[in-house]
Amino acid sequence: MKDVAKEAGVGLGTVSRVINKNGPVKESTRLKVERAIETLKYKPNEVARNFKMQQSRSVALIVPTIWHPFFSKFAYHVEQVLSNNGYKMILCNSQSDVMKEINYISMLEKNKIDGLIAITYSHDLDQYITSHLPIVSIDRHFTEDVVYVTSDNEKGGQIAADELIKRGCRNIAFLGSVSDIKNESMRRRQGFEAEAKQSSISYRVLELEEPVEDINESVRTFFHEHPDVDGVFAMNDKWARIIISTLQNERKRVPEDVQVIGYDGITASKEEELTFSTIKQPVHLMAEKAAEAIISIINDQPTDEKMILPVEFYNGTSTK
Amino acid sequence: MKDVAKEAGVGLGTVSRVINKNGPVKESTRLKVERAIETLKYKPNEVARNFKMQQSRSVALIVPTIWHPFFSKFAYHVEQVLSNNGYKMILCNSQSDVMKEINYISMLEKNKIDGLIAITYSHDLDQYITSHLPIVSIDRHFTEDVVYVTSDNEKGGQIAADELIKRGCRNIAFLGSVSDIKNESMRRRQGFEAEAKQSSISYRVLELEEPVEDINESVRTFFHEHPDVDGVFAMNDKWARIIISTLQNERKRVPEDVQVIGYDGITASKEEELTFSTIKQPVHLMAEKAAEAIISIINDQPTDEKMILPVEFYNGTSTK
Repeated sequence: MKDVAKEAGVGLGTVSRVINKNGPVKESTRLKVERAIETLKYKPNEVARNFKMQQSRSVALIVPTIWHPFFSKFAYHVEQVLSNNGYKMILCNSQSDVMKEINYISMLEKNKIDGLIAITYSHDLDQYITSHLPIVSIDRHFTEDVVYVTSDNEKGGQIAADELIKRGCRNIAFLGSVSDIKNESMRRRQGFEAEAKQSSISYRVLELEEPVEDINESVRTFFHEHPDVDGVFAMNDKWARIIISTLQNERKRVPEDVQVIGYDGITASKEEELTFSTIKQPVHLMAEKAAEAIISIINDQPTDEKMILPVEFYNGTSTK
Repeated sequence: MKDVAKEAGVGLGTVSRVINKNGPVKESTRLKVERAIETLKYKPNEVARNFKMQQSRSVALIVPTIWHPFFSKFAYHVEQVLSNNGYKMILCNSQSDVMKEINYISMLEKNKIDGLIAITYSHDLDQYITSHLPIVSIDRHFTEDVVYVTSDNEKGGQIAADELIKRGCRNIAFLGSVSDIKNESMRRRQGFEAEAKQSSISYRVLELEEPVEDINESVRTFFHEHPDVDGVFAMNDKWARIIISTLQNERKRVPEDVQVIGYDGITASKEEELTFSTIKQPVHLMAEKAAEAIISIINDQPTDEKMILPVEFYNGTSTK
């Protein structure tokens, strides 16, 4: 059965559905599987026929750590959609341990789980990801064609620059870090720079290589060297918080002297409200799209391959 | 096999282990199972012998919502312990939907999951909980003898009153809400009152019935009626945050005019630090104890039935 799946270039679940005629399969996929069965002279046995019974009806969600509002809000909404569709959600805190991530991919190959939604930043994962496995990736491309969901990071950067300029800033800066793992978040800086150039506004960039030892110290030094900066786009809300408190310690008023815009816009719980200005990621929508996509893939339904979802500006306490 | 489990008053997993001799079982338990097998003239069949193969190696964690730092931190540490012991963690946001909770108990009965850790506040759950199922409850008693883990809420209340008094408060108050579902958190008020009485200090209590419509308004009214209150113990950090901001809006200085102590002491992520004063719950330890207990129960190892874990005072910005 595995050989059939490999020959046809589809997942085990698909082969099972074709054999057992018990789930939706695209006509072209069905043909591919039937051709593979013929080529390999495969005879479905009892085990294969019982395959559907053994489906786990579960999807694993890998996050770096659930103890962070972005991931806990994301997980909250993913679980809602999965649960409404009769799937359990298995949660994995990878803490960027690539072995733990690979273990889940292996569970996927063995059909111990039906699908995988992954938010990963670890090295060396690319070689384990194959496009015939039911995987949805968040914020990250893989070499193989894996469905992914992200917010419109580039647009977010453009909006941040635009809002700072509209609010009177003349010396703007991007502050953040960069990882050697390619992910979508670096487009934030690119969008910011493009908008600044187009508006003929001078800008500076402080981009530190991860892991960053002491963000506070780097931020303090940056403002000492560039006391004229009056508008900052921070790569995320964690950076924005550090920047705001550093500025206040340096006796600069926010937003009177320096305006600051973050990126993320997530509160620690449903009841809390945002405080400072930020570019809001549509986490709820991202989670829903990711969960719907994995269910579609598991059931051989069509789904978009790239989902880039709209962001919006939240005008909080750190802009005029 | 189910009848044997019922007759012996043990779980299906235990019966399986006795039949297959493939796991640790207490001598007294083994005897009970063997007696039940004899009584019912039960013959283990192939299915039973394959039982171990079908174990899911998974534990479900039910929380009201993962999008809240207490539950996300708790889940983070539970998953660590489970994962280190080869168990997957299935996460369920119950949102106090008792049907969703009952569904997981039913999965437990059908051995689709091996164990359950539950943080629940919903009505009508008691009748579904039986002591022979592998369940660990957090902060809540059930009629049946279920293992539970909680922080030392009563001691926490005592410490809060004591710290306020030590710091010069002469008119202290407890502010919080109360649910008709019995849970451990109401002991916070009891400990607070006991300590105040013992110190012969006058105290007031504002205890609103859940669900509370408008906490802010109730808090404002309370301080208008009792302007002499100079020390507050809030039932949790959410209340403490609201109390602090209400006081500031009313032009009272914290901690100069009124000192405030919360309860929980959880940050939104690993990187953040606590700000205001609070009684810290040992969430990390609670999670570890709960995960270790469920693994012990699944494997018929002995475990403590009540685990009441120590709390400590964090001296932050809202006390002198």
